[in-house]
Amino acid sequence: MVVLGIDPGTALTGYGFIRLAENGDLSVIDYGVISTPAKTAMENRLVQLYQEINEKILLHHPERGAVEKLFFHTNVTTAISVGQARGVILLCMAQAGIDITEFTPMEVKQAVVGYGGADKRQVQLMVKAILNLQEIPKPDDAADALAIAICCANCNKYFDLRKSLS
Amino acid sequence: MVVLGIDPGTALTGYGFIRLAENGDLSVIDYGVISTPAKTAMENRLVQLYQEINEKILLHHPERGAVEKLFFHTNVTTAISVGQARGVILLCMAQAGIDITEFTPMEVKQAVVGYGGADKRQVQLMVKAILNLQEIPKPDDAADALAIAICCANCNKYFDLRKSLS
Repeated sequence: MVVLGIDPGTALTGYGFIRLAENGDLSVIDYGVISTPAKTAMENRLVQLYQEINEKILLHHPERGAVEKLFFHTNVTTAISVGQARGVILLCMAQAGIDITEFTPMEVKQAVVGYGGADKRQVQLMVKAILNLQEIPKPDDAADALAIAICCANCNKYFDLRKSLS
Repeated sequence: MVVLGIDPGTALTGYGFIRLAENGDLSVIDYGVISTPAKTAMENRLVQLYQEINEKILLHHPERGAVEKLFFHTNVTTAISVGQARGVILLCMAQAGIDITEFTPMEVKQAVVGYGGADKRQVQLMVKAILNLQEIPKPDDAADALAIAICCANCNKYFDLRKSLS
């Protein structure tokens, strides 16, 4: 099963596609960032984001996907801007029929490192180790997206159970 | 020329389509709200919003459009939620090739009532008068969307000039 993690932003959106094998092993398929030019009008940046995310989804056909819940943006202007990118990303994923879960940053850290208070560097080292990569994925937004995908894949075993209960 | 105003929200998104005649007269074409069910997953509400806005745009073919700039959401959770809806709306408008302008609430009041400190009731009465309606448009979100459209239409005379200078 292919799992997609996304770390949304208008300037940089990180994405990570990983494969969850039958035996529970995780491996990387593709990761990177979608970068939109700062001088372009916001609506055109959102159109570019929509197109590029859709291309990646068409290429890798993920069944499950996750984005981070946003809690800690004290700056309301940033929250609106990230919210706009996030809305477009949720739209893409839902239109592709991907089952979406949202995780808090703490849940992602818990899943990847083992405790919710882990720092950025620890998360990145664990992402490298879990996915058996040669180096820490760059840039940070791509590493964050892979961490979200790992968290989503690890929660997969409870996914069908949870669905059957709701 | 057809002008579209939108007041974005996840629960209720107001829309208003008005016609700007050659002589500057404004008349109403269509207005209302898109309502998405609270119990539905956010991503599916965004898909519904995307579909319904696109249907309305295909029906009325606006050339210009406007949304309100968001400043006054002190609640960050609300800001993210409205931001998500707003991102989907900007995407729809940009994909349809609509020229988009953003106005602050004060600019909208200034354009519709004549001063930026006008209250909600004054704005609604002016919308009714300017568009020669029998009653104040309901619900409030639809009236707000029409006010934004009026503001956008009134700024139209400077639009080409502004474009030629940038």
